[in-house]
Amino acid sequence: MHCIQQEFTVRYRFPVIFTQDVFAIDNPVLADVLCQGGHPHNKILLVLDSEVARLHPDLPDAIHRYAQAHQPLMTLVAPPFVVRGGEICKHDPQEVAQIHALVERHQIDRHAYILAIGGGAVLDAVGYAAATAHRGVRLIRLPSTVLAQNDAGIGVKNGVNAFGKKNFLGSFAPPFAVINDRDFLATLPARSLRAGMAEAVKVALIRDARFFAALDAQRDALARFAPDAMQMMIEHCARLHLAHIAEAGDPFEQGSSRPLDFGHWAAHKLEELSHSQLSHGEAVAIGIALDTLYSAAQGLLPDKDAERVIALLTALGFALDHPALQALDVDTALADFREHLGGALSIPLLAGIGHKQEAHAIEVNTMQRCIAQLHARFGSPVPALSPCLAHSV
Amino acid sequence: MHCIQQEFTVRYRFPVIFTQDVFAIDNPVLADVLCQGGHPHNKILLVLDSEVARLHPDLPDAIHRYAQAHQPLMTLVAPPFVVRGGEICKHDPQEVAQIHALVERHQIDRHAYILAIGGGAVLDAVGYAAATAHRGVRLIRLPSTVLAQNDAGIGVKNGVNAFGKKNFLGSFAPPFAVINDRDFLATLPARSLRAGMAEAVKVALIRDARFFAALDAQRDALARFAPDAMQMMIEHCARLHLAHIAEAGDPFEQGSSRPLDFGHWAAHKLEELSHSQLSHGEAVAIGIALDTLYSAAQGLLPDKDAERVIALLTALGFALDHPALQALDVDTALADFREHLGGALSIPLLAGIGHKQEAHAIEVNTMQRCIAQLHARFGSPVPALSPCLAHSV
Repeated sequence: MHCIQQEFTVRYRFPVIFTQDVFAIDNPVLADVLCQGGHPHNKILLVLDSEVARLHPDLPDAIHRYAQAHQPLMTLVAPPFVVRGGEICKHDPQEVAQIHALVERHQIDRHAYILAIGGGAVLDAVGYAAATAHRGVRLIRLPSTVLAQNDAGIGVKNGVNAFGKKNFLGSFAPPFAVINDRDFLATLPARSLRAGMAEAVKVALIRDARFFAALDAQRDALARFAPDAMQMMIEHCARLHLAHIAEAGDPFEQGSSRPLDFGHWAAHKLEELSHSQLSHGEAVAIGIALDTLYSAAQGLLPDKDAERVIALLTALGFALDHPALQALDVDTALADFREHLGGALSIPLLAGIGHKQEAHAIEVNTMQRCIAQLHARFGSPVPALSPCLAHSV
Repeated sequence: MHCIQQEFTVRYRFPVIFTQDVFAIDNPVLADVLCQGGHPHNKILLVLDSEVARLHPDLPDAIHRYAQAHQPLMTLVAPPFVVRGGEICKHDPQEVAQIHALVERHQIDRHAYILAIGGGAVLDAVGYAAATAHRGVRLIRLPSTVLAQNDAGIGVKNGVNAFGKKNFLGSFAPPFAVINDRDFLATLPARSLRAGMAEAVKVALIRDARFFAALDAQRDALARFAPDAMQMMIEHCARLHLAHIAEAGDPFEQGSSRPLDFGHWAAHKLEELSHSQLSHGEAVAIGIALDTLYSAAQGLLPDKDAERVIALLTALGFALDHPALQALDVDTALADFREHLGGALSIPLLAGIGHKQEAHAIEVNTMQRCIAQLHARFGSPVPALSPCLAHSV
């Protein structure tokens, strides 16, 4: 018996850039990103979220003009390919197959680009298509929602759903670059803007008490989506998220290290149970509230801190109950969550604001009491708290 | 405009183990590999190449007995799933879909295992399924052919075909472990044994003149597939292949570094044109002969060295002409090869035995003359040289 021990490291590097009006002719950001790629001529396949296309009917023309002004650096190989926004593009395998067909037809190779503009779900699906064609073509992400700009669009994962399971298929594939254009946020509906704040609350709770305090101090401004407060929230959240990936020692989760998934075991299942009526961010807010109450019930988190968390979430306008929560089977949800990540069950709880502690078992009865508590406090007759009502909670 | 420069490295480590009779109850190799995984109980989904199943009808029972003897360390979750051997499992998307369904049904998570036993094509297809389920479940490869043991089964790539293009879909995903059992080779047909030697000649030519000399010195033993000579050839080839991945600085080919692909631009196309009548190794042998003649025609390689290469390939029993070669469109083949790897065209040529030199343009007329030369020397009336005839060439 002989053994060759193979061992190597792979280095990844990508910029996450914050800008505005990215397709203004004199905005150098995208052109600079392409220059970094090392080739004087670059083919680009443009993929657009249908929601972005609807909110920005002039965008394809603006991108076309930008590309023309930057000839020969960038060539759009085709009109924009529009992907259905939201979870539908992850449920239905046709979108990934269509992108693969476009990559083939337009000879997008491993050094050419897919430029994807959209929300987290679209970036996940396009990312999976890009990562698997030719073992990975370059992907530039332009996240168009708060959630995508501070969380889903800046990380190293992609995925689509299969067998009714969220992200059953996917890979770890860092993008070539991420460009966050704040102007995309100006046209978003309130519901989408609010949903994106859930991941900021989450990352503050498990990594950064000062960021939680900043969010709390800015809660009125955030509740009315004031641009400067939103930008502070997005950039700080993105920074914490990126730092976790780079510093936690296991960016591709090969071992038992865990992503930033406080509140997510319930959130994933709530999205499924509500048939995506709850968006990811809305489900995460409920998941955060639930695991915060559970942390307090376990004596890990002081009650007053739990109340601060609940108060911030309600102040931001999140509904903290939903029929899907009442339908949640805790055992099944925990088992599916464990299965997706592999290894032993590991659920992050709060041992203080800014401090997480992994739990390897959950007391189902206690968790069910926490669910009942959320229902008692936030259930009918008021179906969802509006921002102005929230302060009285 | 702000920019966060994200940067991190990912470390990979896996053993490539050479053993025999891997499922003998007292062979500790597989059990040790599972122990390294860090869990006391391990679920295993067994996937078998149909050709392995045919040649080794007792194998499923032997594996079952091994698993029982190593309870609770390993549990087979299902009877072996048999994948059609050869390129068919990469052409037809059903095999990958079936493996995904089995992963879901048997709750194979990111810390559980797929154990795949088969030739290079089966390992490629199973590897793609394993890499994409849950963003990657653990894969233990047991390569069952010479080509898989010295090349295809030990590297970091997987892939399936799409749009008529070889490996159009795939990813870079190192295995959890590779176990090379020499006993699998004892039952292989001559054609398969011979085909596996092409990659050894290739890697010797571009990286290791002493290995080429060793192959040349052992050519009679290799031509009759003498086990010790075959084992020397396989282990040294595997070692050079692994060293290239670990040391060339770009294991996942993100930049312009190239895999060990001497002779492969033509080989990929010959497989397509022959509708896989030519196996990968057989096509690679022709591709090596062609690029060797071209290197000589360009004045890079002394004629006498080119003749040594041709003489070794024929001594090993390779046919160096095929109707597919006469049908080869050099321009199209070069363009498709460039597209798959991305970036500028880069074709490895020989600047001496053991020394490659990248060419960024190919003189099509010269290449066509080399094709004609192979046809004149090795075409009909003898359709394929047998090992005993080969020495007279």
